Amino acid sequence: MVQKIEITNWFKSLQDEICQNLETKDGKGKFHQDLWERPDGGGGRTRILNDGNIIEKGGVNFSAVHGDLPKNIANALKLPPNQQFYATGVSIVLHPHSPMIPIIHMNIRYFEISNGIHWFGGGIDVTPHYVHKADATFFHQHLKNTCDQHHKDYYPHFKKWADDYFYIKHRKETRGIGGIFFDRLSANEEFTKEQRFAFVQSVGKSFIPIYFHLVDQNKEKTYGDPEKNWQKLRRGRYVEFNLVYDKGTKFGLDTDGRIESILMSLPPQANWQYDVQPTPQSPEHKTQQLLKKEIDWVNNIKS
Amino acid sequence: MVQKIEITNWFKSLQDEICQNLETKDGKGKFHQDLWERPDGGGGRTRILNDGNIIEKGGVNFSAVHGDLPKNIANALKLPPNQQFYATGVSIVLHPHSPMIPIIHMNIRYFEISNGIHWFGGGIDVTPHYVHKADATFFHQHLKNTCDQHHKDYYPHFKKWADDYFYIKHRKETRGIGGIFFDRLSANEEFTKEQRFAFVQSVGKSFIPIYFHLVDQNKEKTYGDPEKNWQKLRRGRYVEFNLVYDKGTKFGLDTDGRIESILMSLPPQANWQYDVQPTPQSPEHKTQQLLKKEIDWVNNIKS
Repeated sequence: MVQKIEITNWFKSLQDEICQNLETKDGKGKFHQDLWERPDGGGGRTRILNDGNIIEKGGVNFSAVHGDLPKNIANALKLPPNQQFYATGVSIVLHPHSPMIPIIHMNIRYFEISNGIHWFGGGIDVTPHYVHKADATFFHQHLKNTCDQHHKDYYPHFKKWADDYFYIKHRKETRGIGGIFFDRLSANEEFTKEQRFAFVQSVGKSFIPIYFHLVDQNKEKTYGDPEKNWQKLRRGRYVEFNLVYDKGTKFGLDTDGRIESILMSLPPQANWQYDVQPTPQSPEHKTQQLLKKEIDWVNNIKS
Repeated sequence: MVQKIEITNWFKSLQDEICQNLETKDGKGKFHQDLWERPDGGGGRTRILNDGNIIEKGGVNFSAVHGDLPKNIANALKLPPNQQFYATGVSIVLHPHSPMIPIIHMNIRYFEISNGIHWFGGGIDVTPHYVHKADATFFHQHLKNTCDQHHKDYYPHFKKWADDYFYIKHRKETRGIGGIFFDRLSANEEFTKEQRFAFVQSVGKSFIPIYFHLVDQNKEKTYGDPEKNWQKLRRGRYVEFNLVYDKGTKFGLDTDGRIESILMSLPPQANWQYDVQPTPQSPEHKTQQLLKKEIDWVNNIKS
């Protein structure tokens, strides 16, 4: 059965590969690496790229931490005390300069407890400042193809999960066009641990082709102050989601995680204006209308 | 005994008085008012000032809402079901253009339940982008004088409460130089309801003299891009506090409150840079060193 060390090493190599690809694509920005140690066990490699040609601020983080399982988690899982945990993963958020290029996020992670419980989790989602249906269809079709290689239920199940997860409840809008989200994928009667890991690897491998396509489709588009202003307002919503709802962020803040690594997801700049109402039928208004759950992007219809 | 209608009207008149004073002081900005109604009872007057001479973005909000007491609050208070509540208050947050002028926040509120339970709450706190000890001492001395008129224990008790409340736990720093915070001040053996209300009125009346002093001390100070950049980073911390910890914000988001009124507290612009470390002994570094609990600002010593 695949062991945590193998998973950990694969995550590390994925971080390397993604960083190299992004630096090449960007053509200017270089990742700065901070190695850090967790006092209670483990550590990570935080890699940040600032002010590239394409990427304004991006983070590609790897971590592998271990230690005593926090009591509240043990209680929630109905486990006896004195368990050990091991958690490893890769987290990415990229904020581009251009408002025509979407924000992208990916996370894949593995968690295990000394009693043998283990699971994989993760997700990938895209937050366009301006929603383009062709891009959204490409993105979801790519995810569907990736999922379908592993199980026909994965895409519909995990697409719905992303709709529900990446949702800004107080705004009654989704963060972006969704993607896939999954958690607690364990070995069971239907799937081996190897099969679960193979799926997570496929998701990780999908990041670069997806992002490069979205960059290439949009990087030559021109924009001015109105589009930059809209981008900063949308980034404000991104901040609202991450600080109010994101479970990974909350877990990190609650458990005294490495703050600068956790909050690398926040944009370089975000604006808040009182009660902005885009002009009806403007591109901004059309985007707002598409920040809804349950859009069937693959077939490009509202279900 | 003072009735809710009297308290409500006094809060309304305070909102009027503060808005008039701020417009006069600012000399350019005018408050825009939105009247709103709550579907389940009551409503408010949201007043926003944008791009004045002094104030870049400010809100002075009044609301008075009522209806069925939410079940989780009834449970928390160990009350039988089917209670009605009434809540009214004034909330202010002002973000100045100049990084040399602090952000200021005040809230005073009154809450009552149909079974006769009632209480006052509130607070006033200041978030300087650059901490000046003389300003901090003035501010806390003014608050102490205000509190001391009502009870000698108020200032030490409510100053400590503010230190604990306006604290960004994940950063291990206070939001600013604190102030006072208080909640659930009811009539009891020691205080009549009139005495509690008189204290809250004193706090409300202290806002303009405090803010005008802080503006006058700092409005002529020059600044450039480094100070503006620091201001935007400090505003990022303000966003982190309000979205992660502020109970009023959380309550509003959880109970489907009027989002644009709740989030008027967020700054016009906030920035996040990875792992900023101010130069030792710079004004930014000195400010960071003073974002601590338990500083005795009245006597200007760290206890």
